Amino acid sequence: MKYVRFRDPAGAVRRGEYENGHVHFGNESYALDDDIDVLPPADPSKIVCIGRNYADHAAELNSDVPDRPLLFLKPPNALAAHGDTVTLPAGKERIDHEAELGVVIGEQCRHVSEGDAMDVVEGFTCVNDLSNRDDQRQEQNWVRGKAFDGAAPMGPVLATPEEVPADAAVRTRVNGETRQDGSRDQLVFSVPELIAEITTYLTLEPGDVIATGTPEGVGPLSDGDEVEIEIEGVGTLEHSVRIP
Amino acid sequence: MKYVRFRDPAGAVRRGEYENGHVHFGNESYALDDDIDVLPPADPSKIVCIGRNYADHAAELNSDVPDRPLLFLKPPNALAAHGDTVTLPAGKERIDHEAELGVVIGEQCRHVSEGDAMDVVEGFTCVNDLSNRDDQRQEQNWVRGKAFDGAAPMGPVLATPEEVPADAAVRTRVNGETRQDGSRDQLVFSVPELIAEITTYLTLEPGDVIATGTPEGVGPLSDGDEVEIEIEGVGTLEHSVRIP
Repeated sequence: MKYVRFRDPAGAVRRGEYENGHVHFGNESYALDDDIDVLPPADPSKIVCIGRNYADHAAELNSDVPDRPLLFLKPPNALAAHGDTVTLPAGKERIDHEAELGVVIGEQCRHVSEGDAMDVVEGFTCVNDLSNRDDQRQEQNWVRGKAFDGAAPMGPVLATPEEVPADAAVRTRVNGETRQDGSRDQLVFSVPELIAEITTYLTLEPGDVIATGTPEGVGPLSDGDEVEIEIEGVGTLEHSVRIP
Repeated sequence: MKYVRFRDPAGAVRRGEYENGHVHFGNESYALDDDIDVLPPADPSKIVCIGRNYADHAAELNSDVPDRPLLFLKPPNALAAHGDTVTLPAGKERIDHEAELGVVIGEQCRHVSEGDAMDVVEGFTCVNDLSNRDDQRQEQNWVRGKAFDGAAPMGPVLATPEEVPADAAVRTRVNGETRQDGSRDQLVFSVPELIAEITTYLTLEPGDVIATGTPEGVGPLSDGDEVEIEIEGVGTLEHSVRIP
């Protein structure tokens, strides 16, 4: 099953079933990119992100793969949706795209074992982990670097786990040109391993999102760029960026 | 004015006026530590914390004062309230108390100048920035170290700004013994400077909290310890800790 969260023409927030570019709710059917205001696929209290979780991306940063998941946080102010124009922090040399498989949590949970972890997953979505390298390089904690307004565009589709192959492609295109082309099966720490580690310390809430890290090919964005983040089996998130 | 957020005996969430150990709402009056379930003074979407914002605390960590505010984040799972017993992460050598002046934001805001910053402040509260040093020392971003469940006890009182002197004392007592005794006027970056810097990057929401950093005297907590965080002009937050 695939779902899209949206504001209908009357302004009400709904979650409809998604099929072939259309969203169905009740007796109504809406064109995704036309009649409705698409919202992020969930309303997270926090986004828990993973750094350097693909060996080839760690290598392009001249970093090692960490011996346990590198965790960082994006708060709700970082949310942006399919179709949005994200205004990036002003005056920076380099703000990068990072295509990521997003995991949407379905129930409140703590101390989840790897064996039970997929039971708390509602589904998968597309995330762009926008990264302000100027500040990230200078910070102990990546707040200016990773938690700025709009730093986590996500959506439009939430796909239930059986829709998404174990080796699903994770891609970025910028202005139609492919920049990243990895696969979920290259994850250093798997989705169950990440859920077990995170919930050792933090309670996850329904709607919380885990952004599982990005494959190699990250690169800078310019004013007006059109970004597509595609996850095979989920769909394609489209947004543009503006640099003031 | 002073306020306390609480659940009344019928279970409804209310904010009442606080005076002399009692909370008044409508025609009712409740004893703070008796009739009601005290809640955190706000319902933040994020807690933005400041590291090494007192020179004497930076020195005791053998660190320098940073040249701009060191930011880190605690998500809502870190909330705990007056009177709570906080269960700390298991198997750690050292989890410390850190008494801090908490700033509660009153309105949604971005790009706030220092001159306008106090207009977005609803009031002040007491925060304990509980810190799991074992993991903090090993992490790039302090998630296991600072964002674990219950890592931000706060409250019980929200005091409007005019209640709190510019040189308000910031104290910790553990089992009745004073461990930290600093003052708000020792802050390296002032509250307006912090709000201006944070809102350059992040929108703050009503109820969001800024934890402004801790003075010297941080130290480890043991199972069963009774912690008091006192801010002059605000009041005293009391909680205990359990180490499983």
